Amino acid sequence: MFEAVPNVSEGRDQATIEEMSSAIRRTDGVRLLNVSSDEDHNRTVFTYVSDDASGIEEASVALFNIAVRRIDLRTHRGAHPRTGAVDVLPFVPLDDTTMDECVGLAVKVGRRVADRFGIPVYLYEYAARAETRRDLPAIRSGQFEKFAEKIADPAWAPDFGPSEIHTTSGIAIIGARDPLIAFNVQLATNRLEVAATIARAVRESSGGLRYVRALPIFLEHRGVVQVSMNLLDYRRTPIHRAFELVKQEAARYGVQVLSSEIVGLVPMDALLATAEWNLQLENFSNKLVLEERIREESD
Amino acid sequence: MFEAVPNVSEGRDQATIEEMSSAIRRTDGVRLLNVSSDEDHNRTVFTYVSDDASGIEEASVALFNIAVRRIDLRTHRGAHPRTGAVDVLPFVPLDDTTMDECVGLAVKVGRRVADRFGIPVYLYEYAARAETRRDLPAIRSGQFEKFAEKIADPAWAPDFGPSEIHTTSGIAIIGARDPLIAFNVQLATNRLEVAATIARAVRESSGGLRYVRALPIFLEHRGVVQVSMNLLDYRRTPIHRAFELVKQEAARYGVQVLSSEIVGLVPMDALLATAEWNLQLENFSNKLVLEERIREESD
Repeated sequence: MFEAVPNVSEGRDQATIEEMSSAIRRTDGVRLLNVSSDEDHNRTVFTYVSDDASGIEEASVALFNIAVRRIDLRTHRGAHPRTGAVDVLPFVPLDDTTMDECVGLAVKVGRRVADRFGIPVYLYEYAARAETRRDLPAIRSGQFEKFAEKIADPAWAPDFGPSEIHTTSGIAIIGARDPLIAFNVQLATNRLEVAATIARAVRESSGGLRYVRALPIFLEHRGVVQVSMNLLDYRRTPIHRAFELVKQEAARYGVQVLSSEIVGLVPMDALLATAEWNLQLENFSNKLVLEERIREESD
Repeated sequence: MFEAVPNVSEGRDQATIEEMSSAIRRTDGVRLLNVSSDEDHNRTVFTYVSDDASGIEEASVALFNIAVRRIDLRTHRGAHPRTGAVDVLPFVPLDDTTMDECVGLAVKVGRRVADRFGIPVYLYEYAARAETRRDLPAIRSGQFEKFAEKIADPAWAPDFGPSEIHTTSGIAIIGARDPLIAFNVQLATNRLEVAATIARAVRESSGGLRYVRALPIFLEHRGVVQVSMNLLDYRRTPIHRAFELVKQEAARYGVQVLSSEIVGLVPMDALLATAEWNLQLENFSNKLVLEERIREESD
């Protein structure tokens, strides 16, 4: 099974989001599992799966087709960094699908997007063709506004497509990666500098927890700030460890955690591991979960 | 689907436990999901399911057949209260099965156990024929050692079988109930009075949390004490609330929680609710769990 988790730079216009959802749903063999929109981020995350790579390919190209018509990054404002209309498009192997198959799919979709829409495409993570392009933040730095300049640097020539950004769609970052958890923690303060200090404390790049990326974000609609995280390997750095560290760092500034949220979907194991940790459970395994045991014995 | 969760007064002799497991596994259409034994409790909890009531009936009678031959309560010692060799046998409706069907099954098994083995049978919870026999602790009070006297009281005449306890097997308590979670918390102390005080603080019968039963137990092998709980309605009083209250009460006596454990199986919802609570998740539902969504969309 293949999973696609595109992050699209539109989180407000319901008509566009619905048009995209429909296009994905209409694709043969593709199941749309989740749509998470955020108005402050002005961004939507779609999650869809298929047993068939070509279904994922068609749904993804259809998504670009709508984004090119509907999204104009020149006027796009949102709290989340972005460089493209379909900003990031990762493919994730599930079940017996291999990472190599996902890399192949990223290359294929990347070529089609570049050829059909004239959008410069960068391949990232397992699909990256240079070590400097492995990490998403490195490619994204400068964002849409500075990318016309960045792309002119030969070191940042795209993997596919023209050496100029698309006027309205910018660039696209397409790749293959392991499952990650998009996990945000809202703080009971409007002080963005508190979220920024905490983000620096918890993320790997500045000395925090390994496999954690973190950004401070101001949520205008709610008047509070957020530490927006990607947990790149939830087995090695579990959700609860990231959460507890954010809470502890926040307390240092007299700030409480208001709530947290998952963007997109979360693997069941990750939540069971959190329950196990918080309850200090002994000898826990998924074999103690009733529904899991019934399913196992039914197979 | 029908679930049976017998609690048997043998947690040490592996040969007996294995003989019982095999008998359950050999029964047509029955799937043995879990076997949880505890040496200190000297008690084993079996969990098995079947789409077919008669399979559950046969497996349960087979279990009694072995218990009558193998267990002698006159020499049985264990930290957990008990009145029978097969001490308690609840049937739980899963999926579309109704509580009435489980009551019917309890009555049928109760009659057979009384007739075939000469064991006095008490029906409890939804199967109870008197309000005074609804709650397990009321029936069990006095335990095996005092039951010869208790059963002579006309108010405690059994629902089926002779009015004298079975010499080696005592009595049997059979019924139908909602799913419950058997949840124990180990404390970093050997002071049984601390566990007893905490048990009184958290259980409904003495003013604590509704739907919680709790007993203090000394775990000889580990040299620590345990608050042994039954959570009778985990949706209304969730695991994490019981756990946090035990932790808080323990702290009052300078005692730390060492660990917790689940006996038998636990519904997935109960653990997801714990993760949701501890992470302060917003807008959480099982629809955010990847595997759940894939299964839903596959149906």
